[in-house]
Amino acid sequence: MNAFSFELIHRSARSHARVGKIHTPHGTIDTPNFVAVGTNATIKALDSQQLENIGLQLMFCNTYHLLLQPGTQTIKKAGGLHKFMNRSMPIITDSGGFQVFSLMYGTVSDEIKSRGKKKLDNSVLKINEEGVLFRSYRDGTPILLTPESSVTAQKDLGADIIIPLDELPPYHVSQDKLRESLARTHRWEKRSFDTHMQNKNNQAMYAVIHGGLDKTLRKESCSYLTQLGFDGYAIGGSLGKTREQMFDLLSYTMPLLPENKPNHLLGIGDLDSLETCIKLGVDTFDSSHPTRCARHGLLFTKNGYKKILQANNKQCFSPIDEGCTCMTCKHYTIAYLHHLFKANELTGYMLATIHNLHFMVLLMAEYRQKILNDQL
Amino acid sequence: MNAFSFELIHRSARSHARVGKIHTPHGTIDTPNFVAVGTNATIKALDSQQLENIGLQLMFCNTYHLLLQPGTQTIKKAGGLHKFMNRSMPIITDSGGFQVFSLMYGTVSDEIKSRGKKKLDNSVLKINEEGVLFRSYRDGTPILLTPESSVTAQKDLGADIIIPLDELPPYHVSQDKLRESLARTHRWEKRSFDTHMQNKNNQAMYAVIHGGLDKTLRKESCSYLTQLGFDGYAIGGSLGKTREQMFDLLSYTMPLLPENKPNHLLGIGDLDSLETCIKLGVDTFDSSHPTRCARHGLLFTKNGYKKILQANNKQCFSPIDEGCTCMTCKHYTIAYLHHLFKANELTGYMLATIHNLHFMVLLMAEYRQKILNDQL
Repeated sequence: MNAFSFELIHRSARSHARVGKIHTPHGTIDTPNFVAVGTNATIKALDSQQLENIGLQLMFCNTYHLLLQPGTQTIKKAGGLHKFMNRSMPIITDSGGFQVFSLMYGTVSDEIKSRGKKKLDNSVLKINEEGVLFRSYRDGTPILLTPESSVTAQKDLGADIIIPLDELPPYHVSQDKLRESLARTHRWEKRSFDTHMQNKNNQAMYAVIHGGLDKTLRKESCSYLTQLGFDGYAIGGSLGKTREQMFDLLSYTMPLLPENKPNHLLGIGDLDSLETCIKLGVDTFDSSHPTRCARHGLLFTKNGYKKILQANNKQCFSPIDEGCTCMTCKHYTIAYLHHLFKANELTGYMLATIHNLHFMVLLMAEYRQKILNDQL
Repeated sequence: MNAFSFELIHRSARSHARVGKIHTPHGTIDTPNFVAVGTNATIKALDSQQLENIGLQLMFCNTYHLLLQPGTQTIKKAGGLHKFMNRSMPIITDSGGFQVFSLMYGTVSDEIKSRGKKKLDNSVLKINEEGVLFRSYRDGTPILLTPESSVTAQKDLGADIIIPLDELPPYHVSQDKLRESLARTHRWEKRSFDTHMQNKNNQAMYAVIHGGLDKTLRKESCSYLTQLGFDGYAIGGSLGKTREQMFDLLSYTMPLLPENKPNHLLGIGDLDSLETCIKLGVDTFDSSHPTRCARHGLLFTKNGYKKILQANNKQCFSPIDEGCTCMTCKHYTIAYLHHLFKANELTGYMLATIHNLHFMVLLMAEYRQKILNDQL
């Protein structure tokens, strides 16, 4: 097994976009690239062989969900996440923190809408310097998530890339609270990093840059975390209400990251954001958008979304996207997919997911080629 | 394309079990064999390529469901069912009658339990000599199913084997009513056959033998229907309350069918019935049992059902069935499947369905070998 490294292949002459290769013990990830979310150690409706055939190089699994089901001890006994789900290609896991704090605030956008007033759930029992105590939604067991326990869980899972525990501050938060939260996040990330360094286990750890919408704090976060020696840098926390706010924040933050390390934009991967983020220098993106869209019958094409349930697809006997080489387009027509969705057949979810992920894989390959050609 | 034919390969020296080959325009079906039910032109959770890889030679699709969604006209425009779902291997469709009458009585076993008193549904508007008028559960459209319209629909679908319209009498029926129903079924089957013969369309048609539990009527049904020149014979109608009643009825009825034609037992395919039915000379069986079991986490093994959700499977890192060569057992463990089912992941349904269908394919191959060896 090879250790983790990042190889910068080319910087576009026209933007901060860059092409690189992240080498991991389970193979290479060409960047920029899209990372599909397989929360429960599976991409919904696909098995690992189908996923590898699509060529998706990095898969994102959620430590929070795997802690609760089947438990990281079980996955450790299986020989780690790769063996458990029989995946030979790279995996990244998060710390579990995002989901725990989401239990309190809802998703970032729910929270923005509710102005921070609504607590969605009383699963979170206590937050203090040690960590977060929450109740399992499965069986009510109280679980203490600390920087150390999160890293230990991620050691059990054995992903190629792991993430330190951070605190997710609410969007509606005072400047003082945001500063306090950032300081705690930095202490937690340091503890996570120290725990990781005691047993690297051939894993890489990406820091998570925080600071919300405050550029000074974002700069402080970059400055502090890049000193510690992480293998890469993820952008976390609130990126604003609008895509423009996010772009503005990334324009400011991305140049503060070291050029010789890979970076990752957490939880963003919608089609409308990708190109601008790539131009700003983002290497990898994770999002459940393409797979969730697939299960709702929204198929990605060069001409935008195709809503498969629309009546005009009923007798359309061509593939979803002419020229698409995915397994679904090679074998099935729009009319057949329309029928499967009308009949609520599980097969439809599988075929749509294959198509959307294949679309993402090709789209990212095209972006890389454009960067190599200095066209982006 | 070749026409339909049946080749009798071997009769067991120890029973009425027989090995044969049904040749169809889309390839050969080795008999005895199991026929999976793909109601809506898909086996639930699998696509046609996965199904062909499993080696399931004959697939059963339901005309009733396809009439309502997407409509047989759409499938005709697609070039028929094979092209619509991209299946290269043989398909059998039913007349639609069974589902329409099931709307009235529930399933045969529901009806047995309710003693024929309970009408489950008011979708059936009228039954007379012409046919059955019912309402679409999708959009309320009244649909008239007649022998002629059922055959026309099945011509549009273009399956290799089609079935004439029959009347399904309730289980709790007087002798007079049963005799009347049989007479009507015979008239309907004759009209279906005549419609079929006007345009064979390279399809074969199996008659459906009726007569309920009355052996005299069963004999009459065999006698009448075998004169008409059908390509094969299906056993339909009530086969009794218990497996023993069914075996008794089949022992009586099977020898009345011509040896040089294939036969099919409609809607029976549970593991406990198969061996006895094969010994009685049954060639093919259709049932949704293995696929429904799979989606409920009941996995077939040489040692009986494995309930995948049972807690003792949590850390069992071996395949479902040692030595099983299915895609699921080659790549995944019981622990992983247990996890997928606990997490309600769609992938679990797919992997379990692949395993159970593969099990049926191998089981039937073993039965054929035993018959060839005169061991059954």
